[in-house]
Amino acid sequence: MKKPQEFKYLSYPQAILVVGTYDREGRPNIAPVALGGMCSHRPPLLFVSLRAATLTHRNIVERQAFTVNVPSSEYIVETDYAGQVSGRDHDKFADCGLTPLRSERVDAPLILEFPTAAECRLAQTVDVGSHTMFIGEIVHLQGDAAISTADLSYLRKDLTDLPDMVQAGGFVYAVTAEGRCYVGLGEVLGRAYRLGRELRDKS
Amino acid sequence: MKKPQEFKYLSYPQAILVVGTYDREGRPNIAPVALGGMCSHRPPLLFVSLRAATLTHRNIVERQAFTVNVPSSEYIVETDYAGQVSGRDHDKFADCGLTPLRSERVDAPLILEFPTAAECRLAQTVDVGSHTMFIGEIVHLQGDAAISTADLSYLRKDLTDLPDMVQAGGFVYAVTAEGRCYVGLGEVLGRAYRLGRELRDKS
Repeated sequence: MKKPQEFKYLSYPQAILVVGTYDREGRPNIAPVALGGMCSHRPPLLFVSLRAATLTHRNIVERQAFTVNVPSSEYIVETDYAGQVSGRDHDKFADCGLTPLRSERVDAPLILEFPTAAECRLAQTVDVGSHTMFIGEIVHLQGDAAISTADLSYLRKDLTDLPDMVQAGGFVYAVTAEGRCYVGLGEVLGRAYRLGRELRDKS
Repeated sequence: MKKPQEFKYLSYPQAILVVGTYDREGRPNIAPVALGGMCSHRPPLLFVSLRAATLTHRNIVERQAFTVNVPSSEYIVETDYAGQVSGRDHDKFADCGLTPLRSERVDAPLILEFPTAAECRLAQTVDVGSHTMFIGEIVHLQGDAAISTADLSYLRKDLTDLPDMVQAGGFVYAVTAEGRCYVGLGEVLGRAYRLGRELRDKS
């Protein structure tokens, strides 16, 4: 049985992505977002939604670039903190003990300590109510060389080097009975495009 | 140390969302997407990205509506299967043993067995390379009454009724050393907006 819900926010496991930008003075800033992710494959496009009041919003408009960094649970406190203060009056990299790494491809900083990151040039801006969607084209990707990577060459020969998200300590943001929480990844339940084969073959 | 990656797809834990639509003949269809999620809060907007060749793409254009259903791991095989065949030649609801439930608010079917779902009217369409982003306004939400819900009324009084994603069997799609996998949710690591407080108070 379904029952109607009043507050209109779909409950699902959301990735937290941390956006890296430079401000007018060239100071690096970070901001975590729950509204973001890949939105197209060719070209590879990634979006982040931000309110106009945020420093990151202004920085992306001015620099036409941003990075999207995937946090590991090792930096969960820092990621949570970075969403509670503004880069206008805090050096969040310093407060978090994180290292900004200048992208060689776009005008934005990467977070050295995070397991993987995409360097994006602003491709499209879509106004959507309380937020602006910044759609960036991924021009370069970096992954931590120390993390085992998945060999996906059985799929396509250029897909050989993506970091293992379980080993990297990936986590999501999700509603639980305790409230809004960060939740770690658990056990691998099966291979995508494999689990459903039997059902496909008999349908 | 970072090393460059050739294939441009950011590795992060992605929610799988299952889109429900009606075709021209009124037949219900489902399609899982990894490219989708909330993109704005006010109004509440949710997007799904689809290739133009898909039946779901055509259905959304024609019906101007869709639902977004969150699968539980109980239906992981069915969810995987639904991404391997087209609704043009398969009745995926029947093949999966799932029940279409007509939305009373929009011209699209919900999946009865899934823990929660959003009913969306098409608000905006954005062309982004290989995919079209369909941005829907959530006009109604439903959650399984049998799943414990989170009382978030300490945040806002209308936010009291979102299903517990861990209890609901939420899972994500992520790259691991084994390849592209579905991964269950693990342990709760901490409360959002709480974990970072100590760091905030001393910064």
